[in-house]
Order: sequence, then C-alpha cells, then structure tokens
Amino acid sequence: VALAGQLLAAATTIVMPRDAPRAKLAATRGYGAEVILYDPEETVREEFAAKLREERGMIMIPPYDHVDVVSGQGTAALELLEETGPLDMLVAPCGGGGLLAGSALAAESVPGCRVVGAEPEQADDAARTFRTGTLQRVVNPRTVADGLRTPSLGRITWPVIRANVADIVTVSEIEIVEAMRFYWTRMKLMVEPSGAVALAALLKGTVGAVGGKAGLIISGGNTDLSAACALLSER
Amino acid sequence: VALAGQLLAAATTIVMPRDAPRAKLAATRGYGAEVILYDPEETVREEFAAKLREERGMIMIPPYDHVDVVSGQGTAALELLEETGPLDMLVAPCGGGGLLAGSALAAESVPGCRVVGAEPEQADDAARTFRTGTLQRVVNPRTVADGLRTPSLGRITWPVIRANVADIVTVSEIEIVEAMRFYWTRMKLMVEPSGAVALAALLKGTVGAVGGKAGLIISGGNTDLSAACALLSER
Repeated sequence: VALAGQLLAAATTIVMPRDAPRAKLAATRGYGAEVILYDPEETVREEFAAKLREERGMIMIPPYDHVDVVSGQGTAALELLEETGPLDMLVAPCGGGGLLAGSALAAESVPGCRVVGAEPEQADDAARTFRTGTLQRVVNPRTVADGLRTPSLGRITWPVIRANVADIVTVSEIEIVEAMRFYWTRMKLMVEPSGAVALAALLKGTVGAVGGKAGLIISGGNTDLSAACALLSER
Repeated sequence: VALAGQLLAAATTIVMPRDAPRAKLAATRGYGAEVILYDPEETVREEFAAKLREERGMIMIPPYDHVDVVSGQGTAALELLEETGPLDMLVAPCGGGGLLAGSALAAESVPGCRVVGAEPEQADDAARTFRTGTLQRVVNPRTVADGLRTPSLGRITWPVIRANVADIVTVSEIEIVEAMRFYWTRMKLMVEPSGAVALAALLKGTVGAVGGKAGLIISGGNTDLSAACALLSER
C-alpha cells in the first residue's frame, strides 16, 4: 500500500502493531507512508483503523476482506501456475484468508488441484471455522507468525474458502521455525514466519497425499535480522 | 561435484579447508561425497589435492581452471542474459576467475556489454594481475569471502579475462557484509560473502558508469546460520 501510494502520489496511512518487525516498519516508512502504531494487547486493529478512518475521512484498504485484495493476492498463485503448469496440490498460508481465497480462485482453472490452507496452531480460528462451518474468532493470538495474527476469516474470504478449499491444517511454532530454517539452508531464502507455514504443513505431512506435483505459496520476508537469528539459533 | 557424482553413481572426493562453512560441509556430505579437510594455514590446497590425486589415481576436477568448468560457470550469465535481454554491464565475483571468464564469454554475444570482475581487497591478486599484466598471487588470504580465497587466476582463466573483461575492482570486508545485508533485507536472499561482492562493487560505484541496465552474478548461499548472524549483527 505504501509503495502504491508513492507511485500514485497518494497519501497513505498504515496501522501497524507496536511489535511489528522493524524491517517492515522501516520499509513502509521508506516508501513514504505515515505509520500509526497501536498496542496489540489493548487494541483490536480493525476497531482502531475504523475510528481513524472516520476521524480523518480516509478510504479504508482492508488487509484481506475485499474483492480486489483477494483478487490481487490470487495473482501470486496465478503466476505460480503459469510457471509450473498444472499442480495436484496448492498450499497457502491462512490468516484473514485473502491469500488463501485468492489462491483457491486461481486454482479453479486447474481441474483436480487440491487447495489447502495452513495456519499456526496458536491462531487456529480458520481451521476451527472450517471444521465447524461457523465463523470462529481469536483475539491477538501469540504466534511467531505475526502476519497471521488476524482475528478471523472475513465476510468475503470465508465463503470463498468454504466453497473452494479442501482443508485447513495447523502447524506448531517449532514447525514454522523449522520450515524457515529449511528455506534458509536449502533454498537460500529469508522467509518470514507467516510465509513459511505452507512448507511447515507440507513437511508435517498433514496436507493430504501428494500424488504428484505440489505448489506452495511463500509470502513475506519481513523479518528483523536479530529476531530471525534469535529464532533460528534456538536449536 | 558431489551432486553430479550422486546422479552419475560415481565416487567423489572433495578437498575442503577445515574452516569451510559447516552448511557447505554438511550439504556436500549429504550428497554422498567423501570430504577431506585440510588446514588452510599450513597447506596449499592445489598441492594437497594433486598429491591425493596421485596417491589414489583419481581424476581431478579443478574448481575453475578447466575449459568445461569455465563454460559451465558461464551458463549462469547465459541464463541471466536470456531472461533480461541485452545488458550494458555485467559484474561477476572473481576468485580463480572461472565464473568471471565464463560470464565474459557469455556476454560476448551482447555488443557493448561491459564485463567487470569484483574481488575482496584482502584477496586482490586478480586486480593486481589485471593492472600489471602478469599473473600475481596471494597466499591463503584472510577475507570473509571464503569462496574467493584462491591463490591466483588460472592458466586458462587469465587469458580469457585479459581479452574479455573491462576491469577488476576490489571491495572491503565491510562493503561485502553491507551487500549481504542488502540482499537479506531488500531481496530476502541469503547470499554468502563471496556471492555478494558484485553487488558490493556496484553499490561502491567503482564499476564504471552504468548507462543503462546492469546485471550481477550472485553465486553461492553457503553460509552458516551462526556465522551469518554474527557477521550481519555487527552493525
């Protein structure tokens, strides 16, 4: 959003939790956005942003619950499929469900492609929602995957996921870190915890039988050096 | 070499300095190669490997000074050019000169593409060779770029470089680490020090005027987690 604002010469204000990675904070400000921090222990970001929007008369760009955002996030899967050809399975991270819903829509063009969402055990609202069929919530969950600390699936993303996703599985904090380590050591990629959950699920073996070619959506490399080093050094 | 040996069911023995990154050591052994370590303070690896070759009656695969190795290393530049189209400049790391010579040969197909080698100040034999026109040496240089601790350009690589490379520039240890940090924070890539020298040279501004499109060869992601964290945390 900050970069888009810069390219379009539009003023942007980004609401971010106080404990967001400093790298993300610095990059967002570097693109010219105003960043307003809130305390995630005391504040629900959706309420905070809604209030700010009203006070300032701004247009809200939600992080996932918007058709354009879902469509845009789906282009990652579209580009992947263009490059790989048909896949038997596609695994995507799930927080608010924008990326997962978009990926599932993109994969509709591939007959027989099983789309699975992956989410942290510590923020398992989407898995519970999927299992129970009714929207479940979580409040400021404690997971290393800071990009997936969303309160629930959205009004737009949940129906898309219900209709197009085969399963949502969860992974532990340790499994997320091990997936990050795999990306680092074998693929030379610095992936943030939220971006590593799909691989964590695949390595765990809970995404179902891979009878062929599986694709993973990797999303996000906003990790602070010190935080990543601390996480990855723990074992 | 270890992976090629595994694919071809051929036994491989790799000579590696005792202080090689543990990640590289583990990966090499993981591909089924026998690894023989030597002490870089006491041993010149070329002599050590030659002796071993004689004792065991093996075929030597030199790390850079062989036409097939130069050609193979040049395919990185070839693939880059296929993807980017014509470049105005191409910068490649330089240790023994295999990658640089191969890159220069690949860039011959692009009229007006200026090819520049980048090397650590602490192992500046190639820059001195280029400047003086006669082969200069360095003995077990102390640089963080462990892949570029080669004693000199080779009999095969030096003439190719002399004929096809526009310049060889040097970068400091700090500049190498800053380039690694750029790759980490902005491109989410874990690049080993030796692979980051080309970017270091570009950022330093000593590669000459970039009148358009510049390409960099990034080569190698063999860094130990702890070593990389220690390096990158220093500032």
